[in-house]
Amino acid sequence: MEYCAKPIASRSKYSPANLRCCFRPVGHPGKCDEFPYLAHLSKVAPKVASKIVRDAIMTTGASWKSADAGPNRILRWVMLHTDEQLATYGINMSKLKPQVVAKLREKAAEYGSCMAVAVKLTGMAYCMPGAPEPPAEIAAYLGEVLGPLSADSTVCLVCREPLPFALFAEARRGKAEVETSHSNPRLHTPENVGFAHRACNIAQGNKTLDEFYAWIAGILARARP
Amino acid sequence: MEYCAKPIASRSKYSPANLRCCFRPVGHPGKCDEFPYLAHLSKVAPKVASKIVRDAIMTTGASWKSADAGPNRILRWVMLHTDEQLATYGINMSKLKPQVVAKLREKAAEYGSCMAVAVKLTGMAYCMPGAPEPPAEIAAYLGEVLGPLSADSTVCLVCREPLPFALFAEARRGKAEVETSHSNPRLHTPENVGFAHRACNIAQGNKTLDEFYAWIAGILARARP
Repeated sequence: MEYCAKPIASRSKYSPANLRCCFRPVGHPGKCDEFPYLAHLSKVAPKVASKIVRDAIMTTGASWKSADAGPNRILRWVMLHTDEQLATYGINMSKLKPQVVAKLREKAAEYGSCMAVAVKLTGMAYCMPGAPEPPAEIAAYLGEVLGPLSADSTVCLVCREPLPFALFAEARRGKAEVETSHSNPRLHTPENVGFAHRACNIAQGNKTLDEFYAWIAGILARARP
Repeated sequence: MEYCAKPIASRSKYSPANLRCCFRPVGHPGKCDEFPYLAHLSKVAPKVASKIVRDAIMTTGASWKSADAGPNRILRWVMLHTDEQLATYGINMSKLKPQVVAKLREKAAEYGSCMAVAVKLTGMAYCMPGAPEPPAEIAAYLGEVLGPLSADSTVCLVCREPLPFALFAEARRGKAEVETSHSNPRLHTPENVGFAHRACNIAQGNKTLDEFYAWIAGILARARP
């Protein structure tokens, strides 16, 4: 698909060099839109839509905000800048704990990559068992970018069990039961991203999926000889 | 072993009915001591000794202290009290988030059980590869309570790999690499407790070890058919 690509105003004080742009097809009528494929989910499942945007474009830092914990969410592409550039946006990396810096830097990703992740996650959400059906226009958009959608095909990236759309609404002890997950936690790319059960994503930790499977195979070999 | 069992003063404002007592053998010379078997580790590896005491007797609550997160550490046996009793000690359970209450209540344990866990963990620490050798008096005490110690026998409770004593000193991103772990996370008893790699303990989550092994066997069957 050829995108419109006109710049879209960003309010982020951390992103003075604005990269954000319109992802509607070139020559579209009406307003520009960075996430046109989320128009329907934003209405029928707004929390899922905002989760997709958040997980696609924001880092996670500390679970709370403080001087040495650093910003708890920041645009992933801002984290590609040098410490010197970041200082000019008011982010002083040298004041953060090393583990916070490592976590933030690990989550860095190009704008284009983040946007490709957002489309991919949207397609995967629509393919979860029990997901709402996308309007024809959105199905066509997603199909053109991702290939044809296959209903009920989305499984947990880690445990490969079907992942029902209804799980998005469930939370235990305040934590959502579905998380965005990465086959390789250091790569925020569409090939590498999916949804997973919270427990699965936590168990995988910072291992790649291959490393995780090899690790649990070793555990089973020792624990159940 | 028959213990001295004379009461030991506790400074906890949460434990007005003091249960704490001396665990030296009855008729011992000198001062009473609640953790006599930690006298050596307290000198050669003070952080390990204090970790054993902390994990044996304290709950973990929120990772930081706040009004609705509740106390972040509290004596496990205090959490056996009713909400009404706790209110008289200044702990208002009804003001805490339900998930915090659940976490605190799940960690509740009898004083005797906590003390038995502390001895067990001390024995396991001395049996880690590379652990300091206990003085004869302490080895005798631990042997009498736990049975003979077998050097280098301590493995991770979850993955069954040897757990080197040196791992106690290692931390990644501010988190210690060795955690106290439970075969059944709802039971704080010596039979049920051990040390585990942090990643292993996290992966196990709130599953029992049996549930965890069954779960990862299912994952492997689906992911590597």
